[in-house]
Amino acid sequence: MTAPEFRPADGDWLALGRAVLAAQPFSQLLGARLVHLAPGEAELHVPLGPSHLQQGGMAHGGVLGYAADNTLTFAGGTRLGADVVTAEYKICLLRPAIGRTVVARATALHAGRSQAVCRCDLFVLDDADASQLCATALGTIVRSGGR
Amino acid sequence: MTAPEFRPADGDWLALGRAVLAAQPFSQLLGARLVHLAPGEAELHVPLGPSHLQQGGMAHGGVLGYAADNTLTFAGGTRLGADVVTAEYKICLLRPAIGRTVVARATALHAGRSQAVCRCDLFVLDDADASQLCATALGTIVRSGGR
Amino acid sequence: MTAPEFRPADGDWLALGRAVLAAQPFSQLLGARLVHLAPGEAELHVPLGPSHLQQGGMAHGGVLGYAADNTLTFAGGTRLGADVVTAEYKICLLRPAIGRTVVARATALHAGRSQAVCRCDLFVLDDADASQLCATALGTIVRSGGR
Amino acid sequence: MTAPEFRPADGDWLALGRAVLAAQPFSQLLGARLVHLAPGEAELHVPLGPSHLQQGGMAHGGVLGYAADNTLTFAGGTRLGADVVTAEYKICLLRPAIGRTVVARATALHAGRSQAVCRCDLFVLDDADASQLCATALGTIVRSGGR
Repeated sequence: MTAPEFRPADGDWLALGRAVLAAQPFSQLLGARLVHLAPGEAELHVPLGPSHLQQGGMAHGGVLGYAADNTLTFAGGTRLGADVVTAEYKICLLRPAIGRTVVARATALHAGRSQAVCRCDLFVLDDADASQLCATALGTIVRSGGR
Repeated sequence: MTAPEFRPADGDWLALGRAVLAAQPFSQLLGARLVHLAPGEAELHVPLGPSHLQQGGMAHGGVLGYAADNTLTFAGGTRLGADVVTAEYKICLLRPAIGRTVVARATALHAGRSQAVCRCDLFVLDDADASQLCATALGTIVRSGGR
Repeated sequence: MTAPEFRPADGDWLALGRAVLAAQPFSQLLGARLVHLAPGEAELHVPLGPSHLQQGGMAHGGVLGYAADNTLTFAGGTRLGADVVTAEYKICLLRPAIGRTVVARATALHAGRSQAVCRCDLFVLDDADASQLCATALGTIVRSGGR
Repeated sequence: MTAPEFRPADGDWLALGRAVLAAQPFSQLLGARLVHLAPGEAELHVPLGPSHLQQGGMAHGGVLGYAADNTLTFAGGTRLGADVVTAEYKICLLRPAIGRTVVARATALHAGRSQAVCRCDLFVLDDADASQLCATALGTIVRSGGR
């Protein structure tokens, strides 16, 4: 089984990534937006509304986990040039994510034949656009069918 | 700073846990249901609808991450007897989660003064109620304010 | 590139595993012994001497990390039937490992085409052979050349 | 229970760190050297000899796990200012570590009241001192007695 290619015919990674994101119902439910995609780099935003919250007014950990997972996958996919899935990740939640947008920025640290290891830092932006690191993740992305 | 207590006055852990879950808007958005809660044990279900999916028809990894995170936290909270937060977890996604319900079962492996280490297995149930392991997670839960 | 086979011609997994362990200078330095190996299961012991310790008299975390890594790899190798390497693991250190032997027991939770996900519990035995869980790990094993 | 202080009376973090390392028999067995220690930063080297190896001539994963664990702990200890232990870490092994020295560099990403989250990149130096990233780790360090 060979994973389908993931490469923009016209070099426009961001347009390709946005088409993938638009095809994910869960990403649409959460209102995620891909704002940057290039080989080895991805940035995804999740504007926070009332339904993204935990009982204490902070973003639910599940929102951060989602953002880490998806952004790691985009960063890894650009390096593997193929349809990919997340094999595993670890996330450290550092402080309550209170603000208006979660910003996830991932970079690929290493890509081999069948897997890419990527890192993702997650920030929360407040109303004044000040940014605070609220979580960090490290994960492994593999070609579809490669688990 | 001391974390508020998390202990049922009447011994009914499940009712207490369900009240916590009902107060989490993100859990309501995802339609999660707590079906078991006892000291060191939690089971949470997420019935899968169209909005939980990934582009390929399987549950989005973010749904599994959410379920792992929340179920680990419930299991750890019962052992620490206090308001808790997830400090970190690692999740391995084993196979596509295709079915009608995600079932997350967590147990606390160890609880110390301020943290509990918990394990969570995630299954997907198909229409015939056959169950398949689709992910597994390991994480650390700490008292609120303890990060 | 194809990973060499890892399968006992005579069905004796333990003998095959012990030959691999004997060929690892670092495992010899630490005095590790493989006591069980079967498809999806491995158990490795590290008798603790003065040079395995941390400043406080407990086993150094590096000894537990070594034991987790090697035991996960053996368990995964039996399921993949090939030369393997550890792609990644996470270990939670639960309590000080004070005793005479570290016992690591790993099981494969899932094996696919090119990777196996394995879990390992680590115990410490005291002089009366009482056993206490001191760490737990979860990791991914891949065929050599598969990273 | 309060963890003993870990702070140099004279501001010389490196001398304090080296005294701690010298008191760890396992670090002596492995020949580890601390080459940098400052608030939130640590660098540790392990010169590779025959006994650090795996069967294939590369450094055993246990050497990388040891180096990650110890370096994360040093970086976290400087930020918490107290005796610390590693609560957990995850390590991704990216490629075979073949060379003459393993170099582990850790930084603290966040430190709260009782835990610090640290990242560690591990490189291998070859005979020409060229450096290659061979592993990366992410972990949580807590005050002694804080697990």
